[in-house]
Amino acid sequence: MAEKQEKKVTPRSQDFAGWYNDVILRAELADYSPVRGCIVFRPDGFAIWEALRDELDRRIKRTGARNAYFPLFIPQSFIAKEAEHVEGFSPELAVVTHGGGKELEEPLIVRPTSETIINHMFAQWIHSHRDLPLMINQWCNVVRWEMRTRMFLRTTEFLWQEGHTAHATQPEAEAETQTMLQTYRTFCEEILAIPLIWGRKSAAERFAGAVETYTIEGLMADGRALQCGTSHFLGQNFARAFNIRYLGDNNELQFVWQTSWGVSTRLLGALIMVHGDDQGLRLPPRVAPIQAVIVPIWRKDEERQQVLGAAQSCLASLEAAGVRTHLDAREGATPGFKFNDWEMRGVPMRIEIGPRDVAAGSVILARRDIASKEAKIKSAIADLPSAAGKLLEEIQTNLLQQARAAMAAETRSFDNYEALKRQMEGEGGGGLAEVHWCGDPECETKIREETRATCRAIPLEDQSRGPCIICGAKGPRAYFAKSY
Amino acid sequence: MAEKQEKKVTPRSQDFAGWYNDVILRAELADYSPVRGCIVFRPDGFAIWEALRDELDRRIKRTGARNAYFPLFIPQSFIAKEAEHVEGFSPELAVVTHGGGKELEEPLIVRPTSETIINHMFAQWIHSHRDLPLMINQWCNVVRWEMRTRMFLRTTEFLWQEGHTAHATQPEAEAETQTMLQTYRTFCEEILAIPLIWGRKSAAERFAGAVETYTIEGLMADGRALQCGTSHFLGQNFARAFNIRYLGDNNELQFVWQTSWGVSTRLLGALIMVHGDDQGLRLPPRVAPIQAVIVPIWRKDEERQQVLGAAQSCLASLEAAGVRTHLDAREGATPGFKFNDWEMRGVPMRIEIGPRDVAAGSVILARRDIASKEAKIKSAIADLPSAAGKLLEEIQTNLLQQARAAMAAETRSFDNYEALKRQMEGEGGGGLAEVHWCGDPECETKIREETRATCRAIPLEDQSRGPCIICGAKGPRAYFAKSY
Repeated sequence: MAEKQEKKVTPRSQDFAGWYNDVILRAELADYSPVRGCIVFRPDGFAIWEALRDELDRRIKRTGARNAYFPLFIPQSFIAKEAEHVEGFSPELAVVTHGGGKELEEPLIVRPTSETIINHMFAQWIHSHRDLPLMINQWCNVVRWEMRTRMFLRTTEFLWQEGHTAHATQPEAEAETQTMLQTYRTFCEEILAIPLIWGRKSAAERFAGAVETYTIEGLMADGRALQCGTSHFLGQNFARAFNIRYLGDNNELQFVWQTSWGVSTRLLGALIMVHGDDQGLRLPPRVAPIQAVIVPIWRKDEERQQVLGAAQSCLASLEAAGVRTHLDAREGATPGFKFNDWEMRGVPMRIEIGPRDVAAGSVILARRDIASKEAKIKSAIADLPSAAGKLLEEIQTNLLQQARAAMAAETRSFDNYEALKRQMEGEGGGGLAEVHWCGDPECETKIREETRATCRAIPLEDQSRGPCIICGAKGPRAYFAKSY
Repeated sequence: MAEKQEKKVTPRSQDFAGWYNDVILRAELADYSPVRGCIVFRPDGFAIWEALRDELDRRIKRTGARNAYFPLFIPQSFIAKEAEHVEGFSPELAVVTHGGGKELEEPLIVRPTSETIINHMFAQWIHSHRDLPLMINQWCNVVRWEMRTRMFLRTTEFLWQEGHTAHATQPEAEAETQTMLQTYRTFCEEILAIPLIWGRKSAAERFAGAVETYTIEGLMADGRALQCGTSHFLGQNFARAFNIRYLGDNNELQFVWQTSWGVSTRLLGALIMVHGDDQGLRLPPRVAPIQAVIVPIWRKDEERQQVLGAAQSCLASLEAAGVRTHLDAREGATPGFKFNDWEMRGVPMRIEIGPRDVAAGSVILARRDIASKEAKIKSAIADLPSAAGKLLEEIQTNLLQQARAAMAAETRSFDNYEALKRQMEGEGGGGLAEVHWCGDPECETKIREETRATCRAIPLEDQSRGPCIICGAKGPRAYFAKSY
């Protein structure tokens, strides 16, 4: 183990993409697999996903949705039932043509998303207004054949949750779309410490089959935006394609109004790229599988017993207080090596304990979010659980504040197109550009082709109108950025 | 809703298979899907799976295994690396031949189990004895092309967990195999209230690629056995096929010793077939998504407010005490209809509250495990949380006792082959037959072909030897039964 991790990660400032891959591989979050475009989630990475998933699952259930599970395979004819849907997904499909040693009569698609099969079932289950709203969520794997893959961000197979709801009225469905957008937003801020912009997508960036797509977007440390979650208002498009109707109070059959919404393992990529630094990963305490690591320090053999004993009792008291703690009692690794190793792995808090600390009945707490020695805190061993709990809360808050500051520093308003072009020049990110855009796809295309920045979101509640940065016609505010 | 559920389920005694399907469909646990051999897990069924999964996950983690996630797809060549493995699984595979609009150079198999791809990764991760033991668990979907399917028991796609471990020595791997067998056994008994027999599989029933397969087997109410979980000792078969070696203390490269183990959504089928009765499902409280249902009873409108108020406060106090409770305040459905509906859905405890109960400050508790009116209990509203908690524990215990008694009544010893044949005659189950068997596959084949009973398990600690029921040669005790 030790020898493998001595190599440091590529500095983030030097090569962002290299740094990103290094962090994932060295922190043992994931590994390449022998299957093109697919990765392996290793235990240290999967534990973050589990923490994130379990908390988001609780929040989704609180909105009234219930979990279910639908088949992995979708009959090929189903995908074709909604015109835009088939067009959007066709190039990305993985197709099962043989099963049980025989060629299938109708090929099966490995689900790229489940609107079609879920709506086929909704049509069986929905009869009257009493069956509505129907709110279903599914945690599963999906497959989209990607040409260029990047760990967590874009892989052929990924894990996600997809919510699918059916409502009696359009306003109800629209409200659900917003409820989930805000559920995702507050989840990202409160749990992942990731600040966001949010809003509508332009028609060009909309989900295939949706009437409107709403998005939350984060800004990565290299100045590129990352779509972190989407919530779609589907109108009656799938209801018509799958004939999902209910008998209304007026005794007439009506098509339902629908939504779908999802976030994926891509959020792990966001965590790394928003919070990581040259030393490696920095995990927000609320999703850190290990929140505190105890590093015992001794030189002489007679100190060893004493220090380890005190470390053990710190471990016990922290665990009893609900702090997820690991005691690093490895022999043959120096404290300095251990410090670097756990910093690289992103553990939010380190507890150092040596012979003099034991004698004084205290320990030293070092925080991962602030590197300076001045940020270290001395705590009496007796007070450790409350001091650690308080410090973890501070770290959680501070990581969000740091990320907010970084986002603010990389958000710029432009009313001059040449200035926008200069900002987006070169291979780097370029940050978030706030412009006015008339809404004409031609102006959007010009920006995309000339700057490689795309429309990330059109804010929802902003009423300001200004001259389009391309054509000068009045339009709302919109965020453009290069993106992953 | 109401009108749909008025139809009763087929009586269990009359048509076991019809009853089984009726219960699943009427209790809305699952539904047929448009994809051959695949089912949809509806929210009421999936919630049972989630309760079961979360508790088993905690127990698996306590043994030291950690969760990870490996690709859905396996290169076709991987399956072929272990001779028995490819032979065992070839007829069951689903094959992806096209991706992203092109024919693939090498077809991909949708995982039927993940030994091959996980062991490919183990070979990258394992170098020295310090990397051992490596203990990984994965919750995922798997696909096996089945010709004859039955909901939960045998479906083309199913959900499961598969554990995969690598150890430095044979005794360590063998101990792990037993640890997991006993983890499954105690889980089934303590949480699912399902009594089991357990032991070794015969060579004919062994997992393709294993040196030994150990099994837990339940007895369903129709007298058929159901394999509920397996734990395999793989020896060095996959280690040799995938070249998984570590540098031992002696500085020599050695192949690791391995295990794999799994349980699946088939356990939902076991729950239904062990505990269900003519009225429908009966759920053990520890996995029941709803443990208690409150049915308010009133005739006159002035009673309604009073009864509902008391019911609401019962709900609040039960939820505060951690009892998963539902208040059925549906209008337009009679109390009798509601009683039947919740009985059919298997809720362990019903709380009845009417005007006279409110006046007396009490409620009536009815238990699903004992139908008689004498089993009803009166509880003061003030004592309800503790009374309900105690009764749920009693119901959990009693369901296990009832199932144990049913299993004992259907377990018979045979030393006469003609008597065994008579017992297994006809379309029904036939129960568990305890015989002595010499271990010769020919004797096993004769039993299977003539009685349709297969060897379910050879008990582990039993030292008794007796004359084989076929050939008379001395052999150990073995359980035979017809099975799912």
